[in-house]
Amino acid sequence: MTADQPLLSNPRSDRVRQVAALGRRAVRARRGQLLVEGPQAVRELVEHAPGAAREAYLTTEAAERHGDLVAAALAAGARVRECTPEVLAAMTDTEHPQGVVAVADRVDVPLPQALAGVGEGFVVLLAHVRDPGNAGTVLRGAAAFGAAAVLVSESSVDVYNPKVVRSTAGSLFHLPVVTGVPVAELLTGCREAGLRLLAADAGGTTPLPEADLGGPHAWVLGNEAWGLDPQVRQACDAAVAIPIVRAESLNLAMAATVCLHASSAARARR
Amino acid sequence: MTADQPLLSNPRSDRVRQVAALGRRAVRARRGQLLVEGPQAVRELVEHAPGAAREAYLTTEAAERHGDLVAAALAAGARVRECTPEVLAAMTDTEHPQGVVAVADRVDVPLPQALAGVGEGFVVLLAHVRDPGNAGTVLRGAAAFGAAAVLVSESSVDVYNPKVVRSTAGSLFHLPVVTGVPVAELLTGCREAGLRLLAADAGGTTPLPEADLGGPHAWVLGNEAWGLDPQVRQACDAAVAIPIVRAESLNLAMAATVCLHASSAARARR
Repeated sequence: MTADQPLLSNPRSDRVRQVAALGRRAVRARRGQLLVEGPQAVRELVEHAPGAAREAYLTTEAAERHGDLVAAALAAGARVRECTPEVLAAMTDTEHPQGVVAVADRVDVPLPQALAGVGEGFVVLLAHVRDPGNAGTVLRGAAAFGAAAVLVSESSVDVYNPKVVRSTAGSLFHLPVVTGVPVAELLTGCREAGLRLLAADAGGTTPLPEADLGGPHAWVLGNEAWGLDPQVRQACDAAVAIPIVRAESLNLAMAATVCLHASSAARARR
Repeated sequence: MTADQPLLSNPRSDRVRQVAALGRRAVRARRGQLLVEGPQAVRELVEHAPGAAREAYLTTEAAERHGDLVAAALAAGARVRECTPEVLAAMTDTEHPQGVVAVADRVDVPLPQALAGVGEGFVVLLAHVRDPGNAGTVLRGAAAFGAAAVLVSESSVDVYNPKVVRSTAGSLFHLPVVTGVPVAELLTGCREAGLRLLAADAGGTTPLPEADLGGPHAWVLGNEAWGLDPQVRQACDAAVAIPIVRAESLNLAMAATVCLHASSAARARR
């Protein structure tokens, strides 16, 4: 399949450096590209966002093991190259990329486009969420529970950070994601689209079982350390708390998972 | 408070080496002790499991900032020593222990004792769960949602692994934990205690909204990679799946969070 091109074997080549440079936020922003690591995530990329797949690199061993992935990457129009394990290791800072990485174009969409598909569904809005693992888990939960979109505010973690991409396990390519928009604009956009705004807030006055999840809505999640800004909370229609018996025992990702599951379950009952 | 004892300043002293050695499983097992890092977790230790608190080490700055913690540690009967930031750093492999670590005795209890308190409640059983972050998050969720106990099978991750202890955020000291017991014995114990055994299983035939959570029950969670062993699944009364729209989009910690929340919500409705 890629036998017409020589094996990439120089870990210090310009090409390898250019791929590795996608570990840096400024480079990702300038080039509008991201790094996707591991067979599962690369498979999701080429299957669910084929137009964004640019380059795929596999060790010879991985290319043999994942023939379907190579075929799908080629079908998506990506350039596919085999490389040595040393080259692959030099492209990422991951201990175990399992022999496969890809370069993709960014996949975020404008806010109106993301909101156009909400219908009677729900979205999740991350307001200043900073932890890569939390953001990735929220994206995963959003895909699991059928959220229509994920809206990530300006000054949140970069969703194209390799740690986020890894922790989404490919979910990044499954639903529309908006990035870099100020929180106020995201809130206004959701309101104008007819979404009820629900702040997920440990100190909220509406217990989750009493929250109105009967129509289109947005879950608004704040920063891990300081929660939601008062003006963001006030802009919401309700502040919803998950009933728990031990204070501070849910982290942001866990709370988001519970809220998104509740939305999904409410929709299934309608 | 600790002014009668000199500041610990030698990162290569025997005492510092002995604390740092608790990063190794064999040492923890031999000494029956664990390392607790950061002010929040140490506070939970001295407040909720004071009998287990042996030693607390704080930088001078942390001791000044957390006077209440020093007082609580002394009240718990722990030896409290101030130390230099270099000593504290040498005691852990954490980048930011925030100036506070403690040495605690293990807190696990025998299975009959853990099950004695279940009543009409629920427990969670980890069968061969290997990832420290997953185990820690499950412990956190169990404490959040009022599980009566967490039962961790033999050949699961060591719950006293510093990574687990960190990710429990102190929840380890909030509820009875059983460790090192073979899965079969845990299942038998739960059954004899009158618990309904529910396998959390992405391929399960009972959707979560239809699961019988009306009486005492145990959630049985399997290994991250290979799931539940067939014989474990067969020993359960039901295999319960969380309805999702995207396959493989929930990890073990997310699934556990949703199941434990469902149990908590079901109990609130009773």
